Order: sequence, then structure tokens, then C-alpha cells
Amino acid sequence: MTDILTLPEKAETEIAEMEESEIVEEIEALEPVEEAARIEEQPETEVEVAAPRLSIIPLGGYLEIGKNMTAIRYGKKILCIDCGLMFPEDEMLGVDLVIPDVSFLVENAGDVLGICLTHGHEDHIGALPYVLRQIETPVWGTRLTLGLVQNKLSEHHLDDVELHPVTPGDTVEIGPFRVEFIRVTHSIPESVSLAIHTPEGILVHSSDFKFDQTPVDGKTSDISRFARLGDEGVLVLLTDSTNVEKPGFTPSERMVGATFGEVFKSAGGRIIVSTFASNIHRVQQVLDVACRYGRKVAFAGRSMAQNVEIASQLGNLRIPEDTRISLDHIKRYDPSEIVIMSTGSQGEPLSSLTRMATDEHKQVKIIPGDTVIISATPIPGNEDLVMRTINHLFRRGANVIYDKIAPVHVSGHGNQEDLKLLVNLVRPQYIIPTHGEHRHVAQYIRMVEEMGIAPERIFKLDIGDVLEMDPEYGPMIVDKVTAGNILVDGIGVGDVSDVVLRDRLHLAQDGVFIVTVSIDKETGELLAGPEIISRGFIYMDASEELIEEARLKIQEELETLSTEEAIEWTAVKQDVRRVVGKFLYERTHRRPMVMPVIMEV
Amino acid sequence: MTDILTLPEKAETEIAEMEESEIVEEIEALEPVEEAARIEEQPETEVEVAAPRLSIIPLGGYLEIGKNMTAIRYGKKILCIDCGLMFPEDEMLGVDLVIPDVSFLVENAGDVLGICLTHGHEDHIGALPYVLRQIETPVWGTRLTLGLVQNKLSEHHLDDVELHPVTPGDTVEIGPFRVEFIRVTHSIPESVSLAIHTPEGILVHSSDFKFDQTPVDGKTSDISRFARLGDEGVLVLLTDSTNVEKPGFTPSERMVGATFGEVFKSAGGRIIVSTFASNIHRVQQVLDVACRYGRKVAFAGRSMAQNVEIASQLGNLRIPEDTRISLDHIKRYDPSEIVIMSTGSQGEPLSSLTRMATDEHKQVKIIPGDTVIISATPIPGNEDLVMRTINHLFRRGANVIYDKIAPVHVSGHGNQEDLKLLVNLVRPQYIIPTHGEHRHVAQYIRMVEEMGIAPERIFKLDIGDVLEMDPEYGPMIVDKVTAGNILVDGIGVGDVSDVVLRDRLHLAQDGVFIVTVSIDKETGELLAGPEIISRGFIYMDASEELIEEARLKIQEELETLSTEEAIEWTAVKQDVRRVVGKFLYERTHRRPMVMPVIMEV
Repeated sequence: MTDILTLPEKAETEIAEMEESEIVEEIEALEPVEEAARIEEQPETEVEVAAPRLSIIPLGGYLEIGKNMTAIRYGKKILCIDCGLMFPEDEMLGVDLVIPDVSFLVENAGDVLGICLTHGHEDHIGALPYVLRQIETPVWGTRLTLGLVQNKLSEHHLDDVELHPVTPGDTVEIGPFRVEFIRVTHSIPESVSLAIHTPEGILVHSSDFKFDQTPVDGKTSDISRFARLGDEGVLVLLTDSTNVEKPGFTPSERMVGATFGEVFKSAGGRIIVSTFASNIHRVQQVLDVACRYGRKVAFAGRSMAQNVEIASQLGNLRIPEDTRISLDHIKRYDPSEIVIMSTGSQGEPLSSLTRMATDEHKQVKIIPGDTVIISATPIPGNEDLVMRTINHLFRRGANVIYDKIAPVHVSGHGNQEDLKLLVNLVRPQYIIPTHGEHRHVAQYIRMVEEMGIAPERIFKLDIGDVLEMDPEYGPMIVDKVTAGNILVDGIGVGDVSDVVLRDRLHLAQDGVFIVTVSIDKETGELLAGPEIISRGFIYMDASEELIEEARLKIQEELETLSTEEAIEWTAVKQDVRRVVGKFLYERTHRRPMVMPVIMEV
Repeated sequence: MTDILTLPEKAETEIAEMEESEIVEEIEALEPVEEAARIEEQPETEVEVAAPRLSIIPLGGYLEIGKNMTAIRYGKKILCIDCGLMFPEDEMLGVDLVIPDVSFLVENAGDVLGICLTHGHEDHIGALPYVLRQIETPVWGTRLTLGLVQNKLSEHHLDDVELHPVTPGDTVEIGPFRVEFIRVTHSIPESVSLAIHTPEGILVHSSDFKFDQTPVDGKTSDISRFARLGDEGVLVLLTDSTNVEKPGFTPSERMVGATFGEVFKSAGGRIIVSTFASNIHRVQQVLDVACRYGRKVAFAGRSMAQNVEIASQLGNLRIPEDTRISLDHIKRYDPSEIVIMSTGSQGEPLSSLTRMATDEHKQVKIIPGDTVIISATPIPGNEDLVMRTINHLFRRGANVIYDKIAPVHVSGHGNQEDLKLLVNLVRPQYIIPTHGEHRHVAQYIRMVEEMGIAPERIFKLDIGDVLEMDPEYGPMIVDKVTAGNILVDGIGVGDVSDVVLRDRLHLAQDGVFIVTVSIDKETGELLAGPEIISRGFIYMDASEELIEEARLKIQEELETLSTEEAIEWTAVKQDVRRVVGKFLYERTHRRPMVMPVIMEV
């Protein structure tokens, strides 16, 4: 995992370091193979043939939030749960997405039976197009989840993936595993927990859930199935822990509908509601309230339009008759008859709402009298962007209603009481918190300790850990497989290394300072230059004096070199870098990346 | 104000743009001068000599949070309130600080009477060393505030600034102004509001405050003075609005002390408390609780040590006897006898707490059994850094207590009820919300409307606005003076322009791609190159093929040029940039900054 705190300041020895890290990767890549070999050898050395073992191998989403993926192995057969992406951290400059390293699956591709998806959020399905290019394997999920997946695969021209739709309540046999899809409530319809029946016992993977007792579509979590599984005896519960810091139960999604009702009752002008495009129940509530108050609804933003399309085709969204209009037609109605549902609730720079806020949206200009509801909570790291959008909207005269001043959002994850209820229903032998960072796992352990569960029954897993279920000694971490972040930037998958990121950070701080000279390849004589160009360091036209001084410094330095020294280009470059770097730091207290270019003519 | 949303993606025409912006700046700089001339001319054209007018001119901290500075002008005489800095926004890459543009003061330097400080926070005093280098003017403030200022000025070798200490309750005559320093409670001791008595009426500037009824030092806000000012009649109230989104009163600082008490009672190992170094009352509470439980206190972090030193010298901090120990001596005591007070409550990368969390602190290694209290709330934008620090601490086995799970912090700013109480005490004719963004001002207006105050009595000012108090027509914005952000980067003040920032953003996203060729200056013949170096774009050793293809593309392009064309260097560079940029985008979907260097030999 890349960490800004551990990144060295300078990247001058990048080649040496790169080689080192490549070696480490190779060693890591070898480990699982060696392990497999060891396991195969065992039967011969023991008296009896060892029974196949059950293991849980997290590949993403443990001690982190995002890129959820878990492998369950029985014997050699592997079943995966989810295949998500993560958005890059601040210091992953220029990176578009982060996906899990699935080397472990690639190395065991022949034994991978498939991927079971729990719901259609990006952090559970977003890496599929990348992973399915590396391993060919079937995918199971509910209809809405697969609808969203299908869309994504088409964009990546992956048209021959085997997709198996299931209905919550279904059970599917996949190799040695019997997988039950159990309905749960979350911030996207058709979410499921999984109960995986194995010869060694039952694993329950809650995935993201809350116990909403009054869901918008009336379909509550299948509490009784969890209770019956508890009766049957569950070996391991893998549980959501995202909201473990929050006391009580998570409020019902309906609460947001009540707020919408109040806002719609009093708003005179247009109403613009921004939320996650995948929150179909939220969209449903807006549609219902709009219909009640005689307003038409237009959709803005590509993902909003796409998700509405898929969800209404599959019957997860009921658009009341004569309610939907095209965004191009909003001018035909009085402002008091209009609702616009838009993307951009996280202040994303290119989203519809942000473009409206900065007056760059073609069809929608914010006007005084508009009411904008931001029906979301900023994800940590996005707060600045969201607040900026809110400020722009206020500046243009809109009345903005956001989470700090009204209950316009509820979480899709269960709070402490939801989490405790799940534990008491399932009554597992062992618990593994997922979907949380170190702090969440720490709070989770504290919480279940108060329920009387001994800390020995809780396992804190990191990605790559192989937790084997030993029938005699219980779960044990017996191995570590390759796992980590693969960075996606443009078309490139995994070609942005730590070195590239470190250089981007360096360039971002103080820019680049390029020194070029032409030198006679025979005599080492200076033929032209030094020429200096810089970007992102200082405004060059206003700093002619500084540049001129730097030029003289370099010239002096080059003149001190003998002919023999001068053709040792590497040493000359080091020299120039040192002299220029020192000079610029003294004069500006900045450290641009100094790049000497020596041309032999 | 720089805004990521309006920054164009590319910076190829930087020179042209720079000249344009410089012209604009010159025009803006001229305006106040012209305005001054107009005012001087007026008396001659009118029958009576016009009476001097009173104006309020915000220079920072209006429709933004940070770099607070307000100028009050009567006739030509100018008095300033505060002189703060702001921390850079995310897209101000590499920038250290942001200070207000004080061109207006520099142009009227002869009429600037001084700067009155309200308290010692960076956003109220941090720009002083920069501004006092541009204008020589005396400074008034309470002893603790000036102690912190003195420290800062010494670091900048500014030793001859005229500093006038005052005591809360004092009144000082400064030219036509009579300035009263009124005690208020805030998250740093010796904070004051100002009542500025002018020939045109009384202005009250609350600055940052809350009504803490049980402050740690027993010194409550001077509520009765506000009430008497209300009786006398106040023309304008400039009021804090930072916490206007929060209902109720802000809890008392003592509440945090109660939490400390509970944690100290049950913690077995060392206790590490991190908070803002300037929160002397918080430090006092830690000292008191430590003393009660027989623990010694060591201080970690330069600013913590400095502030403790200044505050204890001035009597704002009472260190109980035999309680303070040196950080080097903590090993002499049992963990249960130790408290460490540390900087780093915002997850700042180089702070003491962050270094402890990443195991890079020389004297303090985190061990299981340590309890860490993060006694602060992350400032928007810092949440990621703080959470990362918390995760590291948990990972090393510490028990971390932070704002999401316990009441370990209270704000220094008043919530809605504090703000309303101030208005009802002061009963001003007009109100100007300060210390808030658009959203805060919008909420403030909504709040006071509910109190029966007509919106015409509230003024939403932007920096640079000149709000003149017309005795007949009331306040009116009559002019705009130069105001804005000056970026400080290293030693440079104001030399990081939008162009430089735009280049840094570009470099940060996709790195740099440098193409060098040596060309015969007579014939235009290619003598050496093209040579290619790149950083932050793609890992070069792993992309030899791509680089080689790019090299061939450039060679082809150069060969198509005739001799006449080849010596039109600007055109050649444009050409190379276009061809290479297009090729790299097609192959990688990235857009590195392409920089052609042509050397004539």
C-alpha cells in the first residue's frame, strides 16, 4: 500500500530502487507457488491423506475501505466474493482507479470457480473488467447487479463473460460450495449477504448491509434466514464494520423521503436533487414526492440516466406515468413544476451538479429561487469539493439543503446496533470484520467484547493473509499471498509504479528545471548551452536574473572539469544536479526536479 | 481566488496569458488611487466641504475562512483588524501559505495607523511578518497574542516593530478611532472582541468567540460590556459565523476536561494527548488531570514547547510543581506515570504525533498499552491525514480516542445560540457576517431573519469591497480595492502565479516528457538526438518500445521540414509538441507536459 508518510522526498536513485522492488515482487509472486507445492507434498510424508482445508484469503477491502474482494478456498478450488475498485488516495497523483492485485488468482486460474457479487456498487464490482481480462471465470449476482456489470463490461468490449442472474433467496452449487444469496437492505436495491456452505462449515459474508425495518420497496433484510443459519451453526461471520463508530441503529431510508416531502411542500422554484446514481430507492422517493406535488422529473448526468434506465427496465424503479421529461424540455414548464435529479453529490469536478454550480452546464443554469438538495454525505477526502460546490450554488442564489443542516441522507451501512443484531442472529464461532480500516476493526473488537465475545474469536485479517480453518486448532494465518494495489491511469494498468508517483509528487511540489548542453563528443568542449527551461518552479520571465545566475554557475562547473571527466556523463549530470539544486534551494527554498540533458555532437 | 474548476487544462500560452493578467492587476491597482483622487476633488465642486466618511474594507476572511484582515477607514485614516494567513487549498500545489494582498494598504501606507489583533491564531496573526515588511505600522494586542507575534517576528528577523500590549478591558486612542478590547472566550486565552468608536458610530467586531459560561481560567466573555454597548447604540456588528450551521450553544471547554478525567482514571500505560499547540486551556486541563493522577507531563513538538513556554511565562498557563519533565527522561518513569502532550492533531506529515505513528520519532515509540487522545476535530481537507494517523496508531497497538467516539474536543466558535445572544446583546443597526463562506453567510441570514431582523440590515461583503456608511442612505458598496491571495512558497512571496500552479497541476497528473535535439544553426540539419527523458509519466525502462516509437515519430516529423521551416524554432517546437502529445495520448490516454528543447550548434 502506498503511503505518503513513507515516501522519501527525492527520487534520484529511482532505477536502483525500482529493481529492488521488482525483485521483492518476484519473490512474493513465488511464495504461493511454493506453498502449493508444500501442500501437495504433504500427503506423501504423512500416514493418512490429509483432508482438504478451508481457507479465507482477503484480496482487498480488509484494513482498508474499497476494492472489496475475498477468495474462499476449499482444497484447491477457489470462489471469489466481489471484485471492486477503490478511488485513488490524494498522493496517488494522476491515478484514475485502484484495483486489487489478483496475481494469486491468475496463478491458480484453473481452480477459480467464479465470482459471486453482493451488490452493484463500484467498490464491489468496479474491478471486474480488469480482472476478467486476466482470468476467465463465471459471475453470479442479482439482476440489478448484473445489469450494472453488463453495462461496464460492454464499455470495455468484454462481451463473452458468463453471467448467472440469481434472485435473493436462491441457492447455487459452485464446485464444493453451496452459495445462498440472502436479501439485505443497503443503499442499492437487490443487495445480498452470502451464506457459503462448505464441507468444513458455513461461512456467512454479510457484505454491506443495514437492518432497515421500513425499506422503500418493502423488502426487508431476511432476518429469519440469518436466525436459522445461527440455529444450524455458523463457523465464520465476515461482517461489515464501516459504521462501527456510530451508536444506535442506522435510520431508515424512508427518513430521507420525509425530508424531501417537507422541502417540496415549501419550495417555490425548481428543485434539484443530487445523489449517488446507484441509490435507486433515493431516486424512487424523489419520483414519488415529485408526483405527489405535481412536478416533472428530468435526469442529468450520464450515470444517473444509465442507472435509471437499467433499474426501471428491471422493475427496481417505478417511474410514475407522465412524470419523466427530458432535460431539454425543462424550459417548457414553470420552475415550480420541475425537479432535476443530478449526479455530483460528491462535488466531482466534471459532474452535472458541479457544472451547474460553476455555470458550465449547457441545459441548466442556476437561478435565484432554485432549491438544491445534496442528498449525500461527503466521503472523507471529498469534503472540500462538496463545500466548494455548495458555496458556488449559494453564490448564484440557490437555496442549498445539505447534510450539515437537514437530514437529507442516511447511510447504507449498519451502525453498532445493526452490527450487534447480526452477530446475535448468526451466532458464529469466529468473526472477521471487513470493510473497515484499523480503527474500525479496533472499535469492532471493543464492541463485541462488550457483548461477551472473547477476543480470540475475532480475526483481524490483512489482504494476502491465508486464514486456514484447522478443525482441531481453529483458524490460523498459515501463509501470505501476493495482494496489493494496482493503479490504473489512462489505458495503463499497473504501469504507474511508486517511482512514477514519487516523481509526480516531486514535480507537483516545485516543478521541473531542465538544463541542456551540447558537447563535442571528441574533446568534451561545450558547443552550445547551457540552456535552461523550467515549469512549475517559478515564473521564468520574472526571474531572468536567477536563471542567468544559474546558467553561469553551471558554466563554471563545466569548465572545472577536465576532458576525461567531461565525458563521464553520469558524473557530470550528478554534478550539475547537485550544484543547481543547492543554488536554487539557497535562493528560493524550493527543490525543483533538476534534469540535466547532455547532447554529444 | 484560485479555483480548480476554472483552471484551463493546458498551459501552452502562458506568456500571453501572464501579460494579460499583469495588465489586469495594473488596472486594479490604479483604481483605488483614482478613487482617492475623486474624493479629494469633490469638496471643490460641492458647496459645502463633505464630512469624512466611515468605510469597512475587508481584505481577507470574508466569503472564505482564513487570512482574516479588515480595514476600517475614516476619512483617509486606516486602522486594521488582524492580519492572518490561510493554508493552501488542495490545488495550490507546493504552496506553503496564503496571505492577503495588501496593495491597498501599501498604496495608502502614510495613512495606516496600525493593526489591532484579536487573538493569537495563525489565521489572525500569521501574515504579520509578510505585511510588516511592506508597511511599517504599530501593532496592538493582548500580552499572549503579542508574545506569539514576537516569536514569529524574530524568526523573520523583524526586530523593530512597535508592539503595544493591552489588557482586556483597555481602551486605546488610535487617530480618530477609540478602540476597546473586550474579553471573550475562544480556544486560545486572551482573545478579544473590538469595539471601535468612530465619529460616525460604534463598530463592534466580535472576531472568533463563544460564550463559555465555565471557562478553564474562570474569565468569561464580558457579556455586560456587550450589553452596555447595545444600550449606547451600535452602528455595525461584524460577527463570527463559522459555526452557524450548528444548533444550540457550543459546549464549554471544561467538558473536554471531564473526558480527560475518565480516560486518565482507567488508562494503565502511557497517555499521549495531541491538540493544537495554541490551545493553552486544553494544555492546562491535561496538566491538571495529570497532576491529579500523579503523572508527569512531557511536551513533544516545537510549537507545543514554544507555546507552553510563552504562556507559562505570561501566566496564562500554570504548570503544577514537579509535573513537567523532559521528553528525554520519559524512560525513567513507569508508563503509568507518563503523559506526553504532542502536536500533530491534524495529521500533519512532519508533526510529532505523525512521526510517532509511523515509528519515525526519535524519543517516542508507540507500544501496546499506550492511550492516544486526539483532542481536535479534523479541519476539512485534513480528515484523510488524521484518519491515517489514527490507523497507524491502532496498528502499533495503541488505544486511540478521537472525536468520532468520545467528546475529546469542543469548538472555540459559538454555535447558533451564541451568535443569536451576541446579536441580542449588541442590537446593531447593521450586521456583517465574517469568518464564513457563502454557505455560512446564507445560513446566518436565515438565522437572523428568524430573529425578526430584515435582510436589508445584513451585508454580505466580499474581500476588496468598500462599504461606506452613508449617514443618510445607510451602508453602500461604493468601490472595490485590490484584494486576493498572495501565495508564499519557500522564500518567494507572490512569485507563484496561476501559470506556475497550472503547470504543477499538469506535471502532477501525467509528468513531463522532454525531447532534445541538436541542430546545425546554418543548415538546420539534425546533428544529435532526438533524445527523450521523462519523469512521472511512465516507467521508462519498462517502456523502451513506446519511447523508441516516439523518437521515430519525431525524427520523421523533423525530416519533413525544409531548411527554412527548420530554423523557425517556435513552429518546430509547436509541431513536436503536437505530434508527440497526440501519439502519447493515443497509446496511453495520458497527457504529459511535452517540452521540446532545440539546441543550435
